[in-house]
Amino acid sequence: MHRFEDLLKNRRSVRNFQERPVPEKTIRAIIQESILAPSSGNEQSWRFVIVSDTDFMADISQDCKQTLLSRIDKTPNDYAKKYKPILSKPDYNIFYNAPALVYILGVKELKNSEINCTLAASYFMFSAVNRNLGTCWISFAKFVKDDAIKKRLGLDPELFIVAPIIIGYPGKIPAAPPRKEADILKVIRHP
Amino acid sequence: MHRFEDLLKNRRSVRNFQERPVPEKTIRAIIQESILAPSSGNEQSWRFVIVSDTDFMADISQDCKQTLLSRIDKTPNDYAKKYKPILSKPDYNIFYNAPALVYILGVKELKNSEINCTLAASYFMFSAVNRNLGTCWISFAKFVKDDAIKKRLGLDPELFIVAPIIIGYPGKIPAAPPRKEADILKVIRHP
Repeated sequence: MHRFEDLLKNRRSVRNFQERPVPEKTIRAIIQESILAPSSGNEQSWRFVIVSDTDFMADISQDCKQTLLSRIDKTPNDYAKKYKPILSKPDYNIFYNAPALVYILGVKELKNSEINCTLAASYFMFSAVNRNLGTCWISFAKFVKDDAIKKRLGLDPELFIVAPIIIGYPGKIPAAPPRKEADILKVIRHP
Repeated sequence: MHRFEDLLKNRRSVRNFQERPVPEKTIRAIIQESILAPSSGNEQSWRFVIVSDTDFMADISQDCKQTLLSRIDKTPNDYAKKYKPILSKPDYNIFYNAPALVYILGVKELKNSEINCTLAASYFMFSAVNRNLGTCWISFAKFVKDDAIKKRLGLDPELFIVAPIIIGYPGKIPAAPPRKEADILKVIRHP
């Protein structure tokens, strides 16, 4: 039960969690709030998968690291090249020590699914911090390639991953990274 | 100064506004809060344009309607075909009677600009409702084609429109459209 101003300040990307698990019903309640997001034409083209099996999360991490590393090796100037050192560390888990992960999946055939799911993700992150939980959007976790993992996730061909978000009780809450001044290119007033 | 729970309920897509203008400094303050959104690799690949010239907004509306209608006429099964009747009405303004519009523009060369700008848009909409303002994301307003309009907007070729959002003091606040139950496809727990 926080004021929005406090959530604005307290919503940080958290990569360090307490061992305490997040009750499944809390995650479900957060998802219920996430679907209050607006969606294009009220399409609600968002689907959710909850993962609290941390061994499975480690498998997903392994698979995504592998996919990314092999792409980086094949692609000159890959934008992810700068992440090669960290991705190469055997003990680096892309989900850190989070106790749970939620995948927000978009429906491919609906045009604005990426935007709809991103709005739901933003609601998810606010709703979580409103419950004193920490989250982090893990872009690396999009790169699932292994068929057995896809199958276990329920990642059918008509769906695609938009937002993989880890969630847990924060250990250390990092300071906000610096922001540039808002870049307001133009203000067009009545002449 | 609202509790987040109230914002969740009160954030609606508003399409009916009071005549009262929104002070430019209020819009600037909302943009400052919007850039507290997380961004991929802290890239902050969002840019903002504020438009409070309602005559210019009417020109943009006209241009976008034209672009969409001619696309619909040329494209069988265009997803926007269902909007043809409303787009064909001469007095339909895609911005309704909003006193202002903010364009959130993404940087093309940065991979995750669409997601970053959508997160900023979500913050923008929450920050606005926290100030008792109403917003609506107007997808139609992406379809700017006229070069003079693009130029006046500062829409350079390295930028693209992600989120056009109208803002104003709400007249009638509509009820929430119905939501389906959250579609939680799978819960993957420790075996």
